[in-house]
Amino acid sequence: MSIRVLFAANAQRWETYRTALPAAFERAGLDVDLFTETDRSDLVDYIVFAPNGTVSDFTPFTNAKAVLNLWAGVEQIVGNQTLTQPLCRMVDAGLEEGMIEWVTGHVLRHHLGMDAHIVNPGHEWRPVVPPLARNRTVAMLGLGALGRACARALVDLRFNVVGWSRTQKAIPGLTCLSGDDGLQTALSQAEIAVLLLPLTPATENLLDAARLALMPKGAVIINPGRGPLIDDDALIAALDGGHIAHATLDVFRTEPLPADHPFWAHPRVTVTPHIASETRADTASDVIAENIRRGEAGAPFRHLVDRTQGY
Amino acid sequence: MSIRVLFAANAQRWETYRTALPAAFERAGLDVDLFTETDRSDLVDYIVFAPNGTVSDFTPFTNAKAVLNLWAGVEQIVGNQTLTQPLCRMVDAGLEEGMIEWVTGHVLRHHLGMDAHIVNPGHEWRPVVPPLARNRTVAMLGLGALGRACARALVDLRFNVVGWSRTQKAIPGLTCLSGDDGLQTALSQAEIAVLLLPLTPATENLLDAARLALMPKGAVIINPGRGPLIDDDALIAALDGGHIAHATLDVFRTEPLPADHPFWAHPRVTVTPHIASETRADTASDVIAENIRRGEAGAPFRHLVDRTQGY
Repeated sequence: MSIRVLFAANAQRWETYRTALPAAFERAGLDVDLFTETDRSDLVDYIVFAPNGTVSDFTPFTNAKAVLNLWAGVEQIVGNQTLTQPLCRMVDAGLEEGMIEWVTGHVLRHHLGMDAHIVNPGHEWRPVVPPLARNRTVAMLGLGALGRACARALVDLRFNVVGWSRTQKAIPGLTCLSGDDGLQTALSQAEIAVLLLPLTPATENLLDAARLALMPKGAVIINPGRGPLIDDDALIAALDGGHIAHATLDVFRTEPLPADHPFWAHPRVTVTPHIASETRADTASDVIAENIRRGEAGAPFRHLVDRTQGY
Repeated sequence: MSIRVLFAANAQRWETYRTALPAAFERAGLDVDLFTETDRSDLVDYIVFAPNGTVSDFTPFTNAKAVLNLWAGVEQIVGNQTLTQPLCRMVDAGLEEGMIEWVTGHVLRHHLGMDAHIVNPGHEWRPVVPPLARNRTVAMLGLGALGRACARALVDLRFNVVGWSRTQKAIPGLTCLSGDDGLQTALSQAEIAVLLLPLTPATENLLDAARLALMPKGAVIINPGRGPLIDDDALIAALDGGHIAHATLDVFRTEPLPADHPFWAHPRVTVTPHIASETRADTASDVIAENIRRGEAGAPFRHLVDRTQGY
């Protein structure tokens, strides 16, 4: 009997996945019946999920073995009280590679002071050589799959990387800190801080006025994580006051970023339109297929969300 | 008896090296008499050299064992007919690290299309995700110490790197090409081309109108090598015509770049003021000390210039 998989993301995603998922199932040797709607919810084995799709009440899926998220972030589903099935995050090689490229690119941009050359209306020739990366401290806030991968890429480029996470980690090549004291230590050294934390009640507004004030004068914030990790008003005040030199932000409380939001026109803010990392259909479909294979074989799911922690 | 070393770069460099060199000599256990002028040229054992310094005629240095260049490029000295002593280039870890950072930074900048976000007066939210680095071809023209190091860093970031050099090389992780046919093949694939060739009669104007036309439409040129590697007029024509999308240039035929040079105001050119890589006094002094140690021990010099090839 075929494995019954409901695709519950929106129609636009279906356009991409209607061919990518069957191809991945075939690569994995799985016999899957894939559909976007059903009147027998009790017969669904797996739900492929993204926010703003066709499912918000999981109660009817009485026999579903797992909900497989197409996104790395799960904050829009993890609090859903009707969700009793195991929930797996997306950890996609394409998503990870894209994030490494965006993060190392923008870290190098700020490290090298590129903007002064890209926009140089006075045609000034001022040969100031930046310090070497080995003398530049970058704080990586969040050491999940994406944070670890980006930290490693920065270590390979010889940056002095300090990592911080809620629970203590040990990663070769970087100093790992945890807890409130650790965050204070990390921020007080961070010439560049990269935010790759999950959004949870404990991380919302993590970068507030007090924590921004801990950073060295002239520090740079790079946020490819989640918009609400930063207190927007506190950030704007720190930019206006000159304590924070620049913020490059890819994620926002409301997306697209509203036309009247002060980030748009702020000379010390770069807005990128949530492009730091995007799930790629081919590689993501392989991750979905692998978890279905595991579910059918009775093996533990990969990237299972710890519902008590929220990620 | 002390080893007698003449420092023959200009006064500004002496300010940096007057402390860095003695410290390096001490680390190497060398007993050195270091000076900036002498009336007994015949007693000088080694000459530390940079262009525009105090020595242009090497004839009086009848007993000098080597001329140790502070620069990676030697085109300003290699043709000097009075120079009969062995000539060594600078290969400095700091110089190499700085070059890796500048090259990977600007490659990622163009790969990610950052400029459209850094300068976005219309506040446009256009979430176009770039291809992954693994699907982006970068040609590295020149596979000497710096070219190889930069190519390796780009391979680590998963770029598809095609290397080209005059003589055939073999470097793990990248396709190595050589000769005229190889150059044609490399350029015809290059979405981004990085120039790290030495300047010799054979490489002057290497990137001319015909070779620029070989590149895919929309390609980007990045030149941290030497200004005359590019035919400036041909580049401007290719930029004006839209075949080449952008050029980021760190080196020029005349430096500082003259105020009236068309590169300054060209919307598709980024000028950086010869900062891609700078010799760092501490690490460079260790390289000088090591070559003096080798000279005194009768060991072969490192980074010896092949005068017949010009580099």
